[in-house]
Amino acid sequence: MQKVNIDEKLQLFSDYWNPRIVGELNGQQVKLAKFKGEFVWHHHDHEDEMFLVVKGSFKMEFRDHTVDLHEGEFLIVPRGVEHRPVAPEEVSVMLFEPASTLNTGNQRDSERTREVLDRL
Amino acid sequence: MQKVNIDEKLQLFSDYWNPRIVGELNGQQVKLAKFKGEFVWHHHDHEDEMFLVVKGSFKMEFRDHTVDLHEGEFLIVPRGVEHRPVAPEEVSVMLFEPASTLNTGNQRDSERTREVLDRL
Repeated sequence: MQKVNIDEKLQLFSDYWNPRIVGELNGQQVKLAKFKGEFVWHHHDHEDEMFLVVKGSFKMEFRDHTVDLHEGEFLIVPRGVEHRPVAPEEVSVMLFEPASTLNTGNQRDSERTREVLDRL
Repeated sequence: MQKVNIDEKLQLFSDYWNPRIVGELNGQQVKLAKFKGEFVWHHHDHEDEMFLVVKGSFKMEFRDHTVDLHEGEFLIVPRGVEHRPVAPEEVSVMLFEPASTLNTGNQRDSERTREVLDRL
């Protein structure tokens, strides 16, 4: 049982769109990721996803609106809802989601798909 | 689908040891709480609990050691492990745990027990 310092973990990687696992509980995983640029449009059939901004800001695009997210804010995207994160500048995000969650959801063969995530 | 600003939610209450629900996903709840003083020793039979320090610091006591937690750090307490949060000064904490979780765990009749939590 070790505590996790979020800033220390964020210093261990610099690539974008490649979440790292930093905690597990109740079948869920806590992940840290850095975003920059545009992700792919996708949805998750069976998983709700939480995005908590640790540093910076980004936009979560939906088909009919966009939510601006800043440091200290979070958004829960329900299963089935198409979304696309867009980060004009680098942003660090904490994710909470089921261990089964694939980063690109239904877009299983995207160049952004990460089948296996590192644990930090 | 509304984003949540953590600081804004924290300004809506001031009492200690009374978590508020600020999000739900995948059968889990996201809660915000303020701690000050000593909580009761307890464990949860079926739930792992995550404590993320939003502002301030506190100590998580276990029977054989103590973990100091500061802003930007989190700790996952596995089910079955006795623990007691102690906060010499006020601290604001985000909790992530199953919706079934009772704040005082096996100590169901503590004066600190909150059977029903408000949603903010």
